[in-house]
Amino acid sequence: MSLIVQKFGGSSVADAESIKRVAKRIVETRKAGHEVVVVVSAMGDTTDELLDLAEQVVPVPSGRELDMLLTAGERISMALLAMAIKGLGIDALSFTGSQAGMVTDARHGSARIVEVSPKRVREALDSGAVAIVAGFQGFNRLTGDITTLGRGGSDTTAVALAAALDADVCEIYTDVDGVFTADPRVVPTARKIDRITSEEMLELAAAGAKVLYIRAVEYARRHGVTIHVRSSFNNNEGTLVVGPKEGEIVEEPIITGVSADLSEAKITVVGVPDIPGKAAQIFTVVANTNVNIDMIVQNVSTASTGLTDISFTLPKSDAEVAMTALTAAQPDIGFASLQHDDQIGKLSVVGAGMRTNAGVTAKLFTALFEAGINIEMISTSEIRISVVTRADTVNEAVRVVHTAFGLDGDTEAIVHAGTGR
Amino acid sequence: MSLIVQKFGGSSVADAESIKRVAKRIVETRKAGHEVVVVVSAMGDTTDELLDLAEQVVPVPSGRELDMLLTAGERISMALLAMAIKGLGIDALSFTGSQAGMVTDARHGSARIVEVSPKRVREALDSGAVAIVAGFQGFNRLTGDITTLGRGGSDTTAVALAAALDADVCEIYTDVDGVFTADPRVVPTARKIDRITSEEMLELAAAGAKVLYIRAVEYARRHGVTIHVRSSFNNNEGTLVVGPKEGEIVEEPIITGVSADLSEAKITVVGVPDIPGKAAQIFTVVANTNVNIDMIVQNVSTASTGLTDISFTLPKSDAEVAMTALTAAQPDIGFASLQHDDQIGKLSVVGAGMRTNAGVTAKLFTALFEAGINIEMISTSEIRISVVTRADTVNEAVRVVHTAFGLDGDTEAIVHAGTGR
Repeated sequence: MSLIVQKFGGSSVADAESIKRVAKRIVETRKAGHEVVVVVSAMGDTTDELLDLAEQVVPVPSGRELDMLLTAGERISMALLAMAIKGLGIDALSFTGSQAGMVTDARHGSARIVEVSPKRVREALDSGAVAIVAGFQGFNRLTGDITTLGRGGSDTTAVALAAALDADVCEIYTDVDGVFTADPRVVPTARKIDRITSEEMLELAAAGAKVLYIRAVEYARRHGVTIHVRSSFNNNEGTLVVGPKEGEIVEEPIITGVSADLSEAKITVVGVPDIPGKAAQIFTVVANTNVNIDMIVQNVSTASTGLTDISFTLPKSDAEVAMTALTAAQPDIGFASLQHDDQIGKLSVVGAGMRTNAGVTAKLFTALFEAGINIEMISTSEIRISVVTRADTVNEAVRVVHTAFGLDGDTEAIVHAGTGR
Repeated sequence: MSLIVQKFGGSSVADAESIKRVAKRIVETRKAGHEVVVVVSAMGDTTDELLDLAEQVVPVPSGRELDMLLTAGERISMALLAMAIKGLGIDALSFTGSQAGMVTDARHGSARIVEVSPKRVREALDSGAVAIVAGFQGFNRLTGDITTLGRGGSDTTAVALAAALDADVCEIYTDVDGVFTADPRVVPTARKIDRITSEEMLELAAAGAKVLYIRAVEYARRHGVTIHVRSSFNNNEGTLVVGPKEGEIVEEPIITGVSADLSEAKITVVGVPDIPGKAAQIFTVVANTNVNIDMIVQNVSTASTGLTDISFTLPKSDAEVAMTALTAAQPDIGFASLQHDDQIGKLSVVGAGMRTNAGVTAKLFTALFEAGINIEMISTSEIRISVVTRADTVNEAVRVVHTAFGLDGDTEAIVHAGTGR
């Protein structure tokens, strides 16, 4: 008998019919003899509808009250799901974040988990029931207030519960079959990855793969939780996200996946005096606006002018704030001008095999060069290489790189027998 | 500085605009220097919509999960109301039933309050904030589960909080100006009652007046809470529901109000053997179906046959269950036949003055006789007389009785200066 945590997102429980479908799936797992904990998000558009209501009432709602409001969403979906499961003859009990012991700090809207004490969940399992837990929510022990975990919160709830309950696996249900070597809409020959290390998954998520939230993967890595990303529409095996040791396969492919990210913009600070402290000044100004910077490139100074250019990428939505702050600081920093470019695309190749395989960068650059794609910026980590290109060439870039690294499969490979777990 | 509990029902917070209107009203009270605790129901049709969803998922939902589901309703309205109040510059904090310390037994759907420990509400008031509390909901300390109080639950929450916090008054906001001597839609000359004892209010509520729930009035009477029933659409004084002592007015009117109830049916058990124990047998059969019986009449037995008829009234919705049970028991009890009549109306006159004034019954019967209205059943309590008539004559009966007891005012009396509190 295994203990399995299953997480279903909002689109899996969008209406009564979907809820009944998900309930059947949960009951199948329970009847197979497993203990089952289910983490569920709010139904379909509920969260957006509640946000809309709040906006109608007041332009800037209180964080505490917004959390109180939004947590009504999972309350609805989890109660309905528990009813549906009971209707199929299996006992089920729903628990709010507080009832499930999800203790967080007091940061409303983006609380961090500080402790998980799922005593009532454990008792429910011991009594033979399926435990349904509200994703996304927790409570602060000091204030007694309800909190929410922010973006990707339900994934994080699922992984955190899996860790606290020492679950055998945390299944994250989604509308795709798992994690792919590239976005199948861009690369039709992309293959589903059977097994990926959490380290690689982190790099892929950070590089724009949307299937899992970075935060949940980080939590899983730290606590040794095995994640199984799989489709809620079929019973195929999906992708296992495993610890570094389990990830050691004899014939490791050099590259695990290729991803593209079109959500960033580039800002170039032109004509910066090439004297110590100027870069620090620039990034202090940007950091003070709470903007997250991704890649940074500084050109070599041309000795004749004593000036240099500094470029960095950041989320498109943050570009305006950063531009305004830098403009205000221009007299102080003493640069010549600012350039804003929102037509960039970022391509990343990720793979633990890079560590021990020379020539990955050369192969990447060659493939891009042969396809006539220009590289504007480069950034690397131990197991990732990212390059910035023009936005309209990035999909073509993903395809040629996917082929160059031998990742192409046949389309049949997308639905296959799987690796077992 | 007074401590005021204000309760707003679902129609008062049906949408964002209504919520902002209610928020303004609350802020006015707060700015007048009072401490304010607000009890709020779910927005408009939310509860029905949630019930509908539950029905789509499963025919008979689990009571525990239904309570979990329905309590999402007040969570939404209270969070929005708190946001709206904060938007007007007054601090506000919303609390669920559990956060507000509404401890109940474990009867899902119809829990009884066993303890009220509004520690966090008191702290919110001490910090200068308005406390918003979810009506209708509580929690069971033993199981840790969420419960709901059933019909009229939010009124009961408000009164219970008023008692626990030793509030000066519990204001119940509604869409009418207060409690009237009769339903103004039936009797245009009906007058608003300025002051009524909780005892009289109980009888009026039991007799069909819908403005307050019996349970809340009972709670108020037991704990000495003054209720103020008033309109959420104007600032007029409404009706004060007070304890028996405060209710003693020098020139007490004999009758406080007249009410009609069209929700009952009559069942007559025909040809019951007039021997001891038969009535007990009949009402045991009915009691076992959990049906609440209101009035009972037994005809005098005619010596020649040794048979008698027994009639009783009960909620129309329960008639079928009772008929079925009695039919099944017919061979055992040995009656001749059953008659079911759902065209009855019940008229009640209520007034503490009845105790010390003879002739109330005579005056009532005379008024009905002169109007040509036939009386089919009679039942009395210390401060109430109820009669059953044909359903289509009951409104006319209310009008003539209202006039006969000198209750008619002029229409201007409905909106007046009030009595102060």
